[in-house]
Amino acid sequence: MTSIAMIEAAAERLKGQARVTPLVSSPFLDEIAGRRLLVKAECLQHTGSFKFRGGWSAVSALPEEARRRGVIAYSSGNHAQGVAAAAKAHGAPAVIVMPADAPQLKIQNTRDLGADVVLYDRAGGESREAVGAEHAQERGLTLIKPYDDPLVIAGQGTAGLEIAEQAAAEGVTKADVLVNCGGGGLSSGIALALEARAPGLRVRPVEPEGFDDVTRSLADGDIRSNTRISGSICDAILTPEPGQITFPILRRLCGPGIVISEEEAMRAMALAFLRLKIVLEPGGAASLAAALFHADDIKGDAVIAIATGGNVDAKLFEEALARYA
Amino acid sequence: MTSIAMIEAAAERLKGQARVTPLVSSPFLDEIAGRRLLVKAECLQHTGSFKFRGGWSAVSALPEEARRRGVIAYSSGNHAQGVAAAAKAHGAPAVIVMPADAPQLKIQNTRDLGADVVLYDRAGGESREAVGAEHAQERGLTLIKPYDDPLVIAGQGTAGLEIAEQAAAEGVTKADVLVNCGGGGLSSGIALALEARAPGLRVRPVEPEGFDDVTRSLADGDIRSNTRISGSICDAILTPEPGQITFPILRRLCGPGIVISEEEAMRAMALAFLRLKIVLEPGGAASLAAALFHADDIKGDAVIAIATGGNVDAKLFEEALARYA
Repeated sequence: MTSIAMIEAAAERLKGQARVTPLVSSPFLDEIAGRRLLVKAECLQHTGSFKFRGGWSAVSALPEEARRRGVIAYSSGNHAQGVAAAAKAHGAPAVIVMPADAPQLKIQNTRDLGADVVLYDRAGGESREAVGAEHAQERGLTLIKPYDDPLVIAGQGTAGLEIAEQAAAEGVTKADVLVNCGGGGLSSGIALALEARAPGLRVRPVEPEGFDDVTRSLADGDIRSNTRISGSICDAILTPEPGQITFPILRRLCGPGIVISEEEAMRAMALAFLRLKIVLEPGGAASLAAALFHADDIKGDAVIAIATGGNVDAKLFEEALARYA
Repeated sequence: MTSIAMIEAAAERLKGQARVTPLVSSPFLDEIAGRRLLVKAECLQHTGSFKFRGGWSAVSALPEEARRRGVIAYSSGNHAQGVAAAAKAHGAPAVIVMPADAPQLKIQNTRDLGADVVLYDRAGGESREAVGAEHAQERGLTLIKPYDDPLVIAGQGTAGLEIAEQAAAEGVTKADVLVNCGGGGLSSGIALALEARAPGLRVRPVEPEGFDDVTRSLADGDIRSNTRISGSICDAILTPEPGQITFPILRRLCGPGIVISEEEAMRAMALAFLRLKIVLEPGGAASLAAALFHADDIKGDAVIAIATGGNVDAKLFEEALARYA
């Protein structure tokens, strides 16, 4: 089980490797949000998303022998790149199983980071586990899960340690912390870090319409599933249901979820371009969309949004600008 | 004359006000550059460019009486926003004289920051000095020049203090520091800071083709002018000639200038989008273009590029992505 001690240990391993990403802001966005809005620009992390933290945490903790054999991961893209980059830096071979309909940029980047990318047909019902199992068994690879893994959660939690410190430096000690949420690895990691270091800050998961499993699970007090796991531009945060490890943490520590529309995510991308000069992918902009367009669901003078990733294909970004910038 | 003591004093006044912008990087860009490339993401500064530093430095140093009367600035956009934001925070009225053909985003932002924007017709030969003089005299406004002002140079120099510290933390103590250069305020400020704090780091000004006054002036050892000061997408760094105060500093401390094409600036914008997840305007991407596409003009294992600003109209950014991303 992930503890604050594990998060601190992960922070030690990540020191000088992961970037301490800045909190950015704009008076123009404060005005829309109706309160002070601080954005943690985790899109500036290595590989363009927070997933580098969890990947590094897991790979760096492997025994030498396992590291030499290599690692395997299933991912639509950001976890793929995070694990691939961490594996490469540790000299560990990496096999990444990705859906064939993942954003091209994410597939290409994962390959360019030296990973062996295996594509599978998500829509056709092909099982990524079956595709990956053969490789894993044959070569003795260690599976690095995207969220239901204590070391991965600990790695993502290092973002929470930074938020606690950075928010305090800005004079913010009581606020909701909006986190884009798929399986809950980042949300649970940050929640554990804040519980220990900044108890006045509370995580609120943010999800896109139609993929609000965590929001419903939190409301019902038990795990609820999505009926589908593809078909949204917010590809980074689509998962069947909250994790077995992450959900109890979310239930204990998080406030209610917030559900945003794809259009709101695109508008948030355009505003991040205009006002913050950062590049966000739709799933990385959901939390910002919640802060800007669901202000009534939020309390307090300040709010923190984690901008989790920026790996967006140029065409989709151009579309967001053409429509909303 | 600006000294390291003035830069340190400016850093004190800017503490907690200006953002300490991160150094970002990507293995994909290192590969293109042929060496390690660190990018100082000054586009993440308040108002989207480094100009906030100089604006804050100048306004914060004004006597109370002068501050109450207000300030005036001439600018195509980034200095305008920097001065407007600093003036607003100090409760000082601001009049900003801008060319009517400046990017719409910059004009609108300056207005939204509470400044009184006065437009003049640059192409038609209208003199901004004449337009501004009336306001200035009538109201006793203090003129804040964009570069030829010791307090402004000191403010821009605070970026150099950060670079010295951040580069050392990355193990880089000997490298060229590529700086987008208009009148030379940022280049001279950074050069002075590096002279004192990181003498192995050397500023190299970067300019667009057709507006290479500083490069020619450095080569000739005396001030040379451009034949025109508009008509480039790199609007942020178009000036008639190096400043009377800045040029002697540049001549003493800088290496040769580097001249890039508009197309290279656009390609660098697209790569910054893809690889760094930051938004750059053409004039803000020139230094990155120099690092990526003029590698032969640079020596050493590492290079630092200052990405000076991100205030670009959406249409132009879409064009950069459509063509080069």
